[in-house]
Amino acid sequence: MMRLSVAFRHARRSHSTIQRSRTCVKFLSRENRHTPDISAVSFLRAREASSTSGTTETAASLQSHARKYEGPPYERAVGDIVQRCREELKSIGENNPGLKPTLAIIQAGEDDGLLEMNKKMAGKIGLNVMQICLPHRCTEEEVIEEVLRLNKDSRVHGIFLHLPQTFLSKSVRNAIKPQKDVDGVCDLNVGRVVLGDKTDGFTSPVAGAVLELLAKHDAPLVGKMAVLVGLEGPLKVALQCLLQNNGMILQTCRWSSTNLQKQIMDSDVVITLNTNQNHIPSTWLRPGVAAINLGSALLEEHPDSWEATVEAQSAAGLGPLTAAFRMQHVVRSSRRWIQEQQYQPWNIRPLKLHPLSPVPSDIEISRAQTPKPISQLAQEIGLLPEELEAYGNTKAKVHLSLLNRLQHQPDGRYVLVAGITPTPLGEGKSTVTIGLAQALTAHLKLNSFACLRQPSQGPTFGVKGGAAGGGYAQVIPMEEFNLHLTGDIHAITAANNLVAAAIDARILHEATQSDKALYSRLVPSVNGVRRFSPIQLARLQRLGINKSNPTDLTPQEVSAFVRLDLDPEKVTWQRVVDTNDRFLRKITIGQANTEKGHARQTQFDIAVASEIMAILALTDGLADMRARLGRMVVGSSRNGQAITADDLGVTGALAVLMKDAIKPTLMQTLEGTPVFVHAGPFANIAHGNSSVLADKLALKLVGEEGYVVTEAGFGADIGMEKFFNIKCRTSGLRPNVVVLVATIRALKMHGGGPNVTAGAPLPKEYIEENLQLVADGCSNLKKQIQIAHLFGVPVVVALNAFKTDTQAEIDLVCRIAKASGASAAVPCHHWSRGGRGSLELAHAVKEVAAQGSRFQFLYNLQDPIVEKIRTIAQKVYGAEDIELSSEAQAKIDYYNQQGFGALPICMAKTHLSLSHMPEKKGVPTNFILPIRDVRASIGAGFIYPLVGTMSTMPGLPTRPCFYDIDLDPVTEEIKGLF
Amino acid sequence: MMRLSVAFRHARRSHSTIQRSRTCVKFLSRENRHTPDISAVSFLRAREASSTSGTTETAASLQSHARKYEGPPYERAVGDIVQRCREELKSIGENNPGLKPTLAIIQAGEDDGLLEMNKKMAGKIGLNVMQICLPHRCTEEEVIEEVLRLNKDSRVHGIFLHLPQTFLSKSVRNAIKPQKDVDGVCDLNVGRVVLGDKTDGFTSPVAGAVLELLAKHDAPLVGKMAVLVGLEGPLKVALQCLLQNNGMILQTCRWSSTNLQKQIMDSDVVITLNTNQNHIPSTWLRPGVAAINLGSALLEEHPDSWEATVEAQSAAGLGPLTAAFRMQHVVRSSRRWIQEQQYQPWNIRPLKLHPLSPVPSDIEISRAQTPKPISQLAQEIGLLPEELEAYGNTKAKVHLSLLNRLQHQPDGRYVLVAGITPTPLGEGKSTVTIGLAQALTAHLKLNSFACLRQPSQGPTFGVKGGAAGGGYAQVIPMEEFNLHLTGDIHAITAANNLVAAAIDARILHEATQSDKALYSRLVPSVNGVRRFSPIQLARLQRLGINKSNPTDLTPQEVSAFVRLDLDPEKVTWQRVVDTNDRFLRKITIGQANTEKGHARQTQFDIAVASEIMAILALTDGLADMRARLGRMVVGSSRNGQAITADDLGVTGALAVLMKDAIKPTLMQTLEGTPVFVHAGPFANIAHGNSSVLADKLALKLVGEEGYVVTEAGFGADIGMEKFFNIKCRTSGLRPNVVVLVATIRALKMHGGGPNVTAGAPLPKEYIEENLQLVADGCSNLKKQIQIAHLFGVPVVVALNAFKTDTQAEIDLVCRIAKASGASAAVPCHHWSRGGRGSLELAHAVKEVAAQGSRFQFLYNLQDPIVEKIRTIAQKVYGAEDIELSSEAQAKIDYYNQQGFGALPICMAKTHLSLSHMPEKKGVPTNFILPIRDVRASIGAGFIYPLVGTMSTMPGLPTRPCFYDIDLDPVTEEIKGLF
Repeated sequence: MMRLSVAFRHARRSHSTIQRSRTCVKFLSRENRHTPDISAVSFLRAREASSTSGTTETAASLQSHARKYEGPPYERAVGDIVQRCREELKSIGENNPGLKPTLAIIQAGEDDGLLEMNKKMAGKIGLNVMQICLPHRCTEEEVIEEVLRLNKDSRVHGIFLHLPQTFLSKSVRNAIKPQKDVDGVCDLNVGRVVLGDKTDGFTSPVAGAVLELLAKHDAPLVGKMAVLVGLEGPLKVALQCLLQNNGMILQTCRWSSTNLQKQIMDSDVVITLNTNQNHIPSTWLRPGVAAINLGSALLEEHPDSWEATVEAQSAAGLGPLTAAFRMQHVVRSSRRWIQEQQYQPWNIRPLKLHPLSPVPSDIEISRAQTPKPISQLAQEIGLLPEELEAYGNTKAKVHLSLLNRLQHQPDGRYVLVAGITPTPLGEGKSTVTIGLAQALTAHLKLNSFACLRQPSQGPTFGVKGGAAGGGYAQVIPMEEFNLHLTGDIHAITAANNLVAAAIDARILHEATQSDKALYSRLVPSVNGVRRFSPIQLARLQRLGINKSNPTDLTPQEVSAFVRLDLDPEKVTWQRVVDTNDRFLRKITIGQANTEKGHARQTQFDIAVASEIMAILALTDGLADMRARLGRMVVGSSRNGQAITADDLGVTGALAVLMKDAIKPTLMQTLEGTPVFVHAGPFANIAHGNSSVLADKLALKLVGEEGYVVTEAGFGADIGMEKFFNIKCRTSGLRPNVVVLVATIRALKMHGGGPNVTAGAPLPKEYIEENLQLVADGCSNLKKQIQIAHLFGVPVVVALNAFKTDTQAEIDLVCRIAKASGASAAVPCHHWSRGGRGSLELAHAVKEVAAQGSRFQFLYNLQDPIVEKIRTIAQKVYGAEDIELSSEAQAKIDYYNQQGFGALPICMAKTHLSLSHMPEKKGVPTNFILPIRDVRASIGAGFIYPLVGTMSTMPGLPTRPCFYDIDLDPVTEEIKGLF
Repeated sequence: MMRLSVAFRHARRSHSTIQRSRTCVKFLSRENRHTPDISAVSFLRAREASSTSGTTETAASLQSHARKYEGPPYERAVGDIVQRCREELKSIGENNPGLKPTLAIIQAGEDDGLLEMNKKMAGKIGLNVMQICLPHRCTEEEVIEEVLRLNKDSRVHGIFLHLPQTFLSKSVRNAIKPQKDVDGVCDLNVGRVVLGDKTDGFTSPVAGAVLELLAKHDAPLVGKMAVLVGLEGPLKVALQCLLQNNGMILQTCRWSSTNLQKQIMDSDVVITLNTNQNHIPSTWLRPGVAAINLGSALLEEHPDSWEATVEAQSAAGLGPLTAAFRMQHVVRSSRRWIQEQQYQPWNIRPLKLHPLSPVPSDIEISRAQTPKPISQLAQEIGLLPEELEAYGNTKAKVHLSLLNRLQHQPDGRYVLVAGITPTPLGEGKSTVTIGLAQALTAHLKLNSFACLRQPSQGPTFGVKGGAAGGGYAQVIPMEEFNLHLTGDIHAITAANNLVAAAIDARILHEATQSDKALYSRLVPSVNGVRRFSPIQLARLQRLGINKSNPTDLTPQEVSAFVRLDLDPEKVTWQRVVDTNDRFLRKITIGQANTEKGHARQTQFDIAVASEIMAILALTDGLADMRARLGRMVVGSSRNGQAITADDLGVTGALAVLMKDAIKPTLMQTLEGTPVFVHAGPFANIAHGNSSVLADKLALKLVGEEGYVVTEAGFGADIGMEKFFNIKCRTSGLRPNVVVLVATIRALKMHGGGPNVTAGAPLPKEYIEENLQLVADGCSNLKKQIQIAHLFGVPVVVALNAFKTDTQAEIDLVCRIAKASGASAAVPCHHWSRGGRGSLELAHAVKEVAAQGSRFQFLYNLQDPIVEKIRTIAQKVYGAEDIELSSEAQAKIDYYNQQGFGALPICMAKTHLSLSHMPEKKGVPTNFILPIRDVRASIGAGFIYPLVGTMSTMPGLPTRPCFYDIDLDPVTEEIKGLF
């Protein structure tokens, strides 16, 4: 090796031979001034000579310049790279079965020698190659189009543009996604290379190969003079950078440079990109100089000649070495891609809070903060760009594919926020949820996600009260949260009402048509062929008719198939709107002449009461959602059979309408920490919890040491019980800790304080210190703690502090809470101070969550329906027993008969008391829980007994809050929204 | 100058003096080896010396090294830059009043000398400076947060991080938006600099200043040896690049380099970044060498010393020159920003089509094409990133601020696509619209936009028939187009139904409360204060009560204020759903006990029939939309006064609900050309045209030589007439040409062919050649051409060719069309061949549009309502006269009395005949047009006479197309949607 390096320092006088067809690093002696120019053409001839085993004069004379050495110096380098890459690929393959790292090549025209070499190299290493062959005279547009396609193709890890240099315009170069730019040609990668960034970019493989060739000759490069001639663009820059970093002294010049000859003659290393027009006369090269023509690794500039040129040089050393480096880059790119796919530690940049006192209105606080671009937040929490669907700049839907990508990532800790029995004003579970997440992530620097329900738009315009949290613990922008968001509730409305329209239209069509007419319309002849659609075949199967040819059905079978025979009196499916429209609580439809007397009485519910909302909240994926939608029972036939959405043939359409709604929406808190907003089923007739999918995605994203804070509606006796018995049963997730929210106000009410009414001023008991009321009211808190313990989950009491609370009151509550079995009890001040005000809670949650829980369900699904209801009534509500109305009993019998007996129970009970009597505060005892009726959401998967009447359609008050809401047409700012 | 350049080539032996406090380019002689090191500290002392007018030993001895020359060489350079910048700024200011180019500086702690210098330089030039002062020990996060804020601030054109070099981490550097990175520190700008891209990036101003200083001395730099010591990052790279590009030979080394001394001694130029620890002993500098310490333009690496250092060197030449270059970059950035704001020529990359035969289903064609990312299309057509709100990757809303930005840009040409009287199957206006846009832009390379209506989701699941075009002339992805899109129709539904809920709730509240109770609820005491909300004050004004204090109203005034006294029988506002739900055509609401007997009969319409949809289509901005929403008449009081949305107090809430819907949605055609989808008012009870705003935005975007192709619903007698008389009147836009779509099928029907019915096979007359039927049917075509001519607009007939059409038939139609006054008549084949199939049409449109039109309205708004109706009936439909029912006459009287007489007329007539009788084809004559009723959409701004009954709620057929629709849960692909 030293021998060769000497060649750099002292010009050799002896003639040496060069294996020119295999390497284009040439050591030429100054003596042979008669040799022809070292140009593409001469290279070509040289190769022809050697390949035909003869020697032309040119070839011979050229060879006479070359310095002799044994064996091509690059072969070992190539061998090393191949070896390393193979090992790397093997390890990639072992850990990622199914992944096949792939290089995509865009070429114009047929394969040439260089391409063959690259493909061979890829094969040797074990890389896939994908070739995109464009026409010979392709346009820039066509190249870019292919590049963009490959950028998006997740199978492709590297893109190699095997095109003449002139094709590599700025637009083409920069079209390549930097992560796949294994040739290092885009501006960003060039910038990274020159800045020495080795983690993100790629250096030109040609430059790498040149350096390797020079280095392999063991010459200390430091202090050597190098000249680059005729080079442009990324390759020139990369070479400059690499050589300079190795201590070489560089000059660059154009072919037109006036002192070209002098520069060449002064140099130890001459690197050129020869063309037909331009090349260096060998007489200019001083003895011992290393001359490298990059043509053997590149397509040349002149399309007329490049194919021939490449043919000539494809076997040269620079070619294989370049190919090897390129493949190494593809392997590296695959490795990076895999790493990117794996769990990423968070790098959250919190938004600073500067809380004001007195605390401004929610919308003023929300507007005063500038949210991060949602794409930035997504990146911070390790989401990939392709997993995100932005809806404007502050909201984005997250793809469920994330669950698959992070399937091996352990879940984080799961924190449920529930509350004591509330006053009608609510006690701040949402603000506690958000404040806790702000504290954990913005202050304790722990990963956390808040998972919230999407609020109905109805109340937004009815009675004041945002659902985005409040004060300095909010989701921002709060107006987006409270309005259309990403349209999920609208999608539910559309799907729900399509089912309703299908029901009534079907009743009408069946009533007005013969079996034959119905059959010929339902299974029409299209171009002479009658065929069942897949959903019709499914119905036939349910009917026990195993036929697939429409002409094979007997008249009886046709009749069974075409007639759902829905009993208009027993249609249980209601229409919905997302508006507080009390006049739709009971209506008569079908009164137009066109409906031929088929009028019937029905009702509209508020959209979030739709069973489809409950399904959205409980489903774990598209296939499951589709199945649940199909199972929804919409009524029963005249002979008592349950009729489903599948029977109506509408399942696929519902799934299509809901395909975007199934993706949770990412937003952020006031302090820039992540929030999922997804689903918001009614807390009485449904289970009142945010979605299983949002929780699941969040648990993966926060990672093993992170926290997901999710909220249950109503008091713990309802929301938490359903969270455990319904949501956790469905999802398989197990909570680590319950945060139980209490307020001095609610405790005083339970202790015997006067009525608390929305809109009316608070009585003075609630404004002045009253320890006795507080102490007495803690009975409710104690009972709710005990309910959580029934399920084996430890409790942290979060006392949501108001400015009227006294320290003595706060201390009292915390003392009693701990005495009642709470693992911790702390006041929190998130409303006035943001996450900083919830730090104590965050510490408590962290500590208690680490202790582990012994989670258990309250009942078995296989228990009889009545027993399940009784268990909840007695163990949770403290009832003596239950009492079933005859209607309730009949429904239970019907559900058992239809095979719906093994579903969990979703109690529809007031949230204002542990009992069914809203006025009974504290811990009511000695009561029998009356079960007025029992209903079922078969698609969602629960039976819901009605305890008293449940309104499913709110109304507007005399002065709805829309009186205060307005939009500034110039600034587009919303006024008066809370 | 030559004198100085010599100093480079031949070391001067004589002692020279250097004005070191003003420049740090120092020419030192080798002789004075006793001088102290050239370090930050010595520079500091030197300056102290000169500023105190005394000389310390150090200063004196330092000065003795310096070569003497007259006047600092940089001053002229700075002066030149200042001069150029001032002129540039002046011209910017003249053309962009209100624009104040601004440099934002992020600094840690107080101002230092260097900062003062930069601010002074900015002041000299006339730039604004915005200073962000972070605490001395700020974190990387804080810096990034500020950078991101400045990135988004459109007032800021350059960001300068005046922070120690150690603060400029990779994350900080790359947080800066490349367009504002005037110091050239982000990877992308570094990449651009080294690649020689001068159009997009910025080079380090320090590097620029160094080169300027060296060049000012007039030394030919070519061939000089330069060494860079202790430099890192972007500055090092930029210097390397600039010096190398000027022919210098470069070495770089670290302070730790072992042969540092040798390298320095060999160099002609030594550039260092000195620190407390590291500096070059002056003994290493050979005579005549140019030594530059960059400390005078940068904050140094050691926070302990950097302030003092800067203080010392701020007056040095490198400092001012760097500042000047920096300001020049800010000016350049402002200029680029202005250019970016101006109209951009398009650079569309069309998507390639490979049409198959036979033509596959619409959804198969749509799925086979990969749409461009919508952000890319937006960029191609000159939209700014901040004007775009992505909804996923294929749809985006476009901000109306565009209208303001391009207000001085002349509109493009305005092409209306209308049709002859169609068969019930439709004759393909949408496909012609899209095909024409594809032809113009993807093939003729002319800018064009297609503007389409958003379809109702109801029919998507009812009867087959997409609205996204079809075949190879489609909007993609068609499923997005046909489903929720960006939620506009959902927003309309929500707004519409909020009005409805408010109406009935108000009727109930008024009926059940006294004036006093109503008043105390409508104007409640909040914390002891009663106040009218702005919308209530507006109502008071309409009532003629000029009081603002709630306690001042008389009981009569209170009564007038609180009671709208809506007559339940005269409520004209209907609820809507976007579902084909026939059972809602006539319903009774309010039958629940809670509504206390206030049941009344009403109906639901399909959502697109809402007046709010018509408003969306006609409005020209937020303020106008808000005003129109407020003017909507919802019914009348018992004493006959029109009651508006404003009276209900709901205007602001409606505007808030519609704030996103007002932005048109950008999508693309199958060939990657832009499409706006916006609004879709019913074509019978409303005007059936896409939105004014979409057309206006598109006309600006296509530019003066571009084309906007917009479509009118139904036949030209209805859609086109309303387009002219209603939409053009509102928008002020004037069409250049009408494309009149005809099919051989429809012409044969008009010529006397058998009935054409949806679902039934076509009679053979329509499949076989029949020239007589075609010739006879051209009467309808001729009449529609004449209608267009009534308005003074030239017509191009587009014969939408089917595969059954014969050449003779096609030729016949084109011949008759031209004989009937059409400026051109051509067949088009977009359905089977895409834009290429519509090239002939595109050429014809281009030619005819260039000829100019003499547009005129058909009637004056001031004409009596009856006269306006008669004019349309006679001149457009060919009726003998009109005949008003007594109900119609009464309504007209009422509207006149209410002051609504001067509105345009929106005829609600069948589209299947020029007359009111759908069965009368061709050109019916001798008929009297009966006006059954007259209604009004006061907010939208038109009167609509009903000719016959108009269904506003479609129904589902026996086999709705949802039977075929499904979703693959794995691929998420939709099946069966057309």
